Amino acid sequence: MSGRRYAIGVDFGTESGRALLVDISDGAEIAAAVHAYAHGVIDEVLPGTSMRLEPDWALQHPDDYLEVFRRAIPAVLKASGVDPADVIGLGIDFTACTMLPTAADGTPLCMLPEWRDHPHAWVKLWKHHAAQPEANRLNQIAAEQGYTFLNRYGGKISSEWFFPKAWQILNEAPEVYAAADRLIEAADWVVWQLTGIESRNECTAGYKAMWSKHEGFPPDAFFRALDPRLEQIVDTKMSRTLLPLGARAGGLSQQAAGWTGLLPGTAVAVANVDAHVTLPVTGSIAPGTMVMIMGTSTCDVLIGERQATLPEVPGMCGVVEGGIVPGMPGYEAGQSAVGDIFAWFIENGVPAEYHQAARELNVSLHALLEAEAARLKPGESGLLALDWWNGNRSTLVDVELGGLLVGMTLATTAPEIYRALIEATAFGKREIIETLNTAGVPIRRLVAAGGLPERNRLLMQIYADVTNHEISIVRSGQAPAVGAAMHGAVAAGVAAGGYPDIAAAASHMGGLRPETYRPIPANVAVYNRLYAEYKTLYDYFGRGENDVMKRLRSLRHEQLAASS
Amino acid sequence: MSGRRYAIGVDFGTESGRALLVDISDGAEIAAAVHAYAHGVIDEVLPGTSMRLEPDWALQHPDDYLEVFRRAIPAVLKASGVDPADVIGLGIDFTACTMLPTAADGTPLCMLPEWRDHPHAWVKLWKHHAAQPEANRLNQIAAEQGYTFLNRYGGKISSEWFFPKAWQILNEAPEVYAAADRLIEAADWVVWQLTGIESRNECTAGYKAMWSKHEGFPPDAFFRALDPRLEQIVDTKMSRTLLPLGARAGGLSQQAAGWTGLLPGTAVAVANVDAHVTLPVTGSIAPGTMVMIMGTSTCDVLIGERQATLPEVPGMCGVVEGGIVPGMPGYEAGQSAVGDIFAWFIENGVPAEYHQAARELNVSLHALLEAEAARLKPGESGLLALDWWNGNRSTLVDVELGGLLVGMTLATTAPEIYRALIEATAFGKREIIETLNTAGVPIRRLVAAGGLPERNRLLMQIYADVTNHEISIVRSGQAPAVGAAMHGAVAAGVAAGGYPDIAAAASHMGGLRPETYRPIPANVAVYNRLYAEYKTLYDYFGRGENDVMKRLRSLRHEQLAASS
Repeated sequence: MSGRRYAIGVDFGTESGRALLVDISDGAEIAAAVHAYAHGVIDEVLPGTSMRLEPDWALQHPDDYLEVFRRAIPAVLKASGVDPADVIGLGIDFTACTMLPTAADGTPLCMLPEWRDHPHAWVKLWKHHAAQPEANRLNQIAAEQGYTFLNRYGGKISSEWFFPKAWQILNEAPEVYAAADRLIEAADWVVWQLTGIESRNECTAGYKAMWSKHEGFPPDAFFRALDPRLEQIVDTKMSRTLLPLGARAGGLSQQAAGWTGLLPGTAVAVANVDAHVTLPVTGSIAPGTMVMIMGTSTCDVLIGERQATLPEVPGMCGVVEGGIVPGMPGYEAGQSAVGDIFAWFIENGVPAEYHQAARELNVSLHALLEAEAARLKPGESGLLALDWWNGNRSTLVDVELGGLLVGMTLATTAPEIYRALIEATAFGKREIIETLNTAGVPIRRLVAAGGLPERNRLLMQIYADVTNHEISIVRSGQAPAVGAAMHGAVAAGVAAGGYPDIAAAASHMGGLRPETYRPIPANVAVYNRLYAEYKTLYDYFGRGENDVMKRLRSLRHEQLAASS
Repeated sequence: MSGRRYAIGVDFGTESGRALLVDISDGAEIAAAVHAYAHGVIDEVLPGTSMRLEPDWALQHPDDYLEVFRRAIPAVLKASGVDPADVIGLGIDFTACTMLPTAADGTPLCMLPEWRDHPHAWVKLWKHHAAQPEANRLNQIAAEQGYTFLNRYGGKISSEWFFPKAWQILNEAPEVYAAADRLIEAADWVVWQLTGIESRNECTAGYKAMWSKHEGFPPDAFFRALDPRLEQIVDTKMSRTLLPLGARAGGLSQQAAGWTGLLPGTAVAVANVDAHVTLPVTGSIAPGTMVMIMGTSTCDVLIGERQATLPEVPGMCGVVEGGIVPGMPGYEAGQSAVGDIFAWFIENGVPAEYHQAARELNVSLHALLEAEAARLKPGESGLLALDWWNGNRSTLVDVELGGLLVGMTLATTAPEIYRALIEATAFGKREIIETLNTAGVPIRRLVAAGGLPERNRLLMQIYADVTNHEISIVRSGQAPAVGAAMHGAVAAGVAAGGYPDIAAAASHMGGLRPETYRPIPANVAVYNRLYAEYKTLYDYFGRGENDVMKRLRSLRHEQLAASS
């Protein structure tokens, strides 16, 4: 053992998992390793079968997660040369709600020969959107019967969340539902695999499973109203024991020590969510800072003021006491596609000449388009988009909405469209900020984290101009993994050389870059005009005045169903 | 001289001119030659200068037209081996309103050294859209002062037409306006160059210059109300003598005989317009047949019933007595971009993999996308578009509208967008048909002509399904040139072996293909639903409920102006 102490954070993303070994004294990132999931996002054919999945399905393979432990943790230990005895804690963060049915011993049903050919036995990824009918019904019944828990979620539960997904299993595969001894967030499942002990965290329960510290889960009567077979779901397939963030879920099992090369008994923190775990990486847990974790999608997290009655914000993902740091109200909002929209455009909308030019200049197509788009002034493209390629998470909570682009002429170019798509996501962000401000949750400061802010300076400047906020960037380029490591250091505790709480870990291990993006007043003025146009279209297409997007979606499903 | 008689039609398009030598007994197409304009569409830099044109400008070089006579007519004579003495007539058709200022002897101002550096001295192509302020003002004043001639044009004059263009010259270059002894349609100008005699035709005067057989041009007082300097425009720079379609404008001049290799004195018909000249090529001039001339844009022409008071159809391009065939009311409507939208998409929106696949299959990108799009069912893409990439000609008469695409998801593909764009133009067509039907001008039959119907079977099937009309195709693949040749045969007259009128020429020289496109009932049902959605968006964005497209356009111009 040396004098230094380390923690490892493992960040489970949509396509890969990343292990990061961090010096807990200052957050220095000593070694990182990424392991891409062999099966990635399963949205076409069920592995090992020729079974085609329906549209809106998105599954994953649970063994891909364990491979991250088996590959990436040994890799960081090897690369760093750190003595495993100096690694005092391990934390993970995960996408959510990503959930799976398992046997009582934690074996995923999809790993059992009798269930592996059944799509509902697999992990449902956060962006599995096929449980919309269940979400709609749940929202309707909760509203009709006057349940107030919906208010904590902006008035609507998303189809991405735990109970719609669980209910979809019951509706479409009651035999799988019956065979599932446990229904569990993948976040909690990987911690179970590390410790041998099933634990559940307050964050995913609060944001994705309608739990609150004061009220617990919705009452059994509510679940009975959904479907009598759901009445006992919490007691039979879940757990009412939930651990706060930063708590020790257990020590590393002998088996997991074998996978990872860490010592058995190493402290493992309860699971956390990729977005929420990132907030303390800013170096502070002060209220009023919105942290935007910008990647394929964007999550916005912020800590609110402690107050007797929490403001309820329409169309937010949720407010959860202790959902981000224990004892404080944590707000979450989000945009269901951001980087994904740009990636879609790069893949589906950019003509050959730009591919050619990017090759000649030896830059990525993204970089080329960014450079071209940066030459345009705000408003110069004549275009405006609604950023709903994957529905709208906040503030409309509606996966059935679709994208929109308006203003094209015969002179419209790919870089103009690219810029309009970036601007649309910025307008979406502004809508979230204004909704929070109006509801009494003031946003004082914006901090960006995630992959996009590092890659795309134009995007950050547009966000600053559209929101009229200076934007800082989290120091770490792998912030969720740092956040997960922080929680590992807190789970280890002071006695082991760790930290007493998240605030202490944040102040030592987090921080911002010196460089910020400042709003340019001339751009702010133009974007105020464009935002007014965006808002009109937002309300027209998003709030029921013209439900054409939903009707197009439903006609599409009708026609696809008729083909199959 | 042999026993056979021939006529030549010369069709002046947007990018090239085509000469066609036709046997007048049966319309057999003996030889054709195309000459591409050396300067094409001039919309970036004025030739021979480094002067950049403003957005929305589109000019042409008048000598490019004469080169068509010098190159393409000798080419068809040579290829056919026909004796010039057997060519009894020559007709032309042209884009409209394409107009230019000339000296008294017909020399275009732009060919004079003192004016060639001045953009306003050049030919303004039909799609020159920079005279919108003049069009708006003209419409406003006509409406305020209660002039009824607007009713013949659906209530609105387009910025593409003669007087807005002439007025723009006066406003922006009064010296050019003053120097112009004549302001003339390029159609009439090329006939002038052939015959040495200035003549003007009733068709362009009726559709593009607000002239009618009963009322003539608007009164001088109206022009004075626009601008006192315009008061005498008709008498000083135009002519009140207009010749009916099929009339003999004159005989071929010695000079033009030298250009073409035809005999001096060969009958030359008065000028005609590409769309209108095509109607008799169907083989009939019966009322109720809408002929859709489908190319970069689409013109729809049809002959109405002879009646005391002509129905006035909102948002049509015009109704002109004798505008298509003498003595009958001719209706014109149009869509300002059709093939142009597909070409824009091919150039600006199709990813590299499709280019690659098209090369491998040795097919055009259009053909590849058509094949992929044809695999989709109506509604399957989940997309809907408004076909306003170049504004909307009918029924909104508004060049400031822009394109719209709605319903995109992260799974949306290029062929899906391609199909949605085709469908959008078909919905635009249906809107025109329904407007005519509602106004008391019943459409009984659809006939397609132009380049698109031959190239794109999917497009024709979609038009049949969307309109729920069987669609026939004109026999000739170069219909306007055949129509122009017909008018040459009529101008030659019976004594020279030609025809007494258009009806007779049509019945001998025109005709339809045996194959037709029939509506598929299942598709019709789906497209009825999609058309209802289209119509809602059409009215919302097109009729003032949300003028976002115009505001985006105006902001774009503001920002471009600020840059320059």
